[in-house]
Amino acid sequence: MTKTKRILPLLLRLLALGANIAGIIVMVTSQDSTKVLNLTFNAKYSNTPAFKYFVIAEAIASGYSLIVLFIPSETMLWHFVVILDVVMAMLLTSSISAALAIAQVGKKGNSHAGWLPICGQVPKFCDHVTGALIAGIAAAVIYLLLVLYCFFYVLKPFSVVKP
Amino acid sequence: MTKTKRILPLLLRLLALGANIAGIIVMVTSQDSTKVLNLTFNAKYSNTPAFKYFVIAEAIASGYSLIVLFIPSETMLWHFVVILDVVMAMLLTSSISAALAIAQVGKKGNSHAGWLPICGQVPKFCDHVTGALIAGIAAAVIYLLLVLYCFFYVLKPFSVVKP
Repeated sequence: MTKTKRILPLLLRLLALGANIAGIIVMVTSQDSTKVLNLTFNAKYSNTPAFKYFVIAEAIASGYSLIVLFIPSETMLWHFVVILDVVMAMLLTSSISAALAIAQVGKKGNSHAGWLPICGQVPKFCDHVTGALIAGIAAAVIYLLLVLYCFFYVLKPFSVVKP
Repeated sequence: MTKTKRILPLLLRLLALGANIAGIIVMVTSQDSTKVLNLTFNAKYSNTPAFKYFVIAEAIASGYSLIVLFIPSETMLWHFVVILDVVMAMLLTSSISAALAIAQVGKKGNSHAGWLPICGQVPKFCDHVTGALIAGIAAAVIYLLLVLYCFFYVLKPFSVVKP
């Protein structure tokens, strides 16, 4: 790999790391409370398994991004990085989709199941979750770009398999 | 590609197609009703956006699997198939995760948000959704295997980039 070809993926990895960490911080700090009939209800991310999964997945991706930054450029390990990038892209997509599905019920509710929306009661919580999801989506898109980059520039498919 | 190398991905694609179609049929036929205070409530997949997304994603993947079966073996189009396989794996993972998150609320509820579980009232509906999710997970795993296969055998990464 030439030097310029190394800078773009490095930048993408740093951006993904930033987006992942932002997603974790915004999700973990999401908290709001509401009073119903003198009882206080607390809304926090850890009450919902999908949001916990989101934080865990973002943490795994952050750790992976950090480790990859320290892999020396001239090693066979990079072949596995391509596969792991695909796995990370799938993990991030999965966690975002799960969190998004729950956030949608929180926002709109589901009248057929009798689940009422909660965003009217705990707007600050919902704003935080929205922010975390946007950061998560950004990280997933960056990972998809990394996979495409690796595919087109590192593996050079068009010069490998001849029709 | 040799003939044996072509048979395995073909088999995997047929399996993925079968799993996708099974997932769609089982999800679309999921229906159950319950009587509460003389009022009948119907549970069906189309009442939940996440389940509709699941059916749409499985349908897209089925259509894609079908088209790919008819691509002649000696064409440059196969390079894009590798990328599209990654995209399909991500799409399937995303739709399964969203449906799974909602199914979890349907099964266990979320006491903090005041969402009650509904599987006790509509067990047949929940069984169908579970079946559809298992088929969907199978399809996603097959797509991941296809991506790994393409990576290791078609692109031959270990012979391309030398350390």
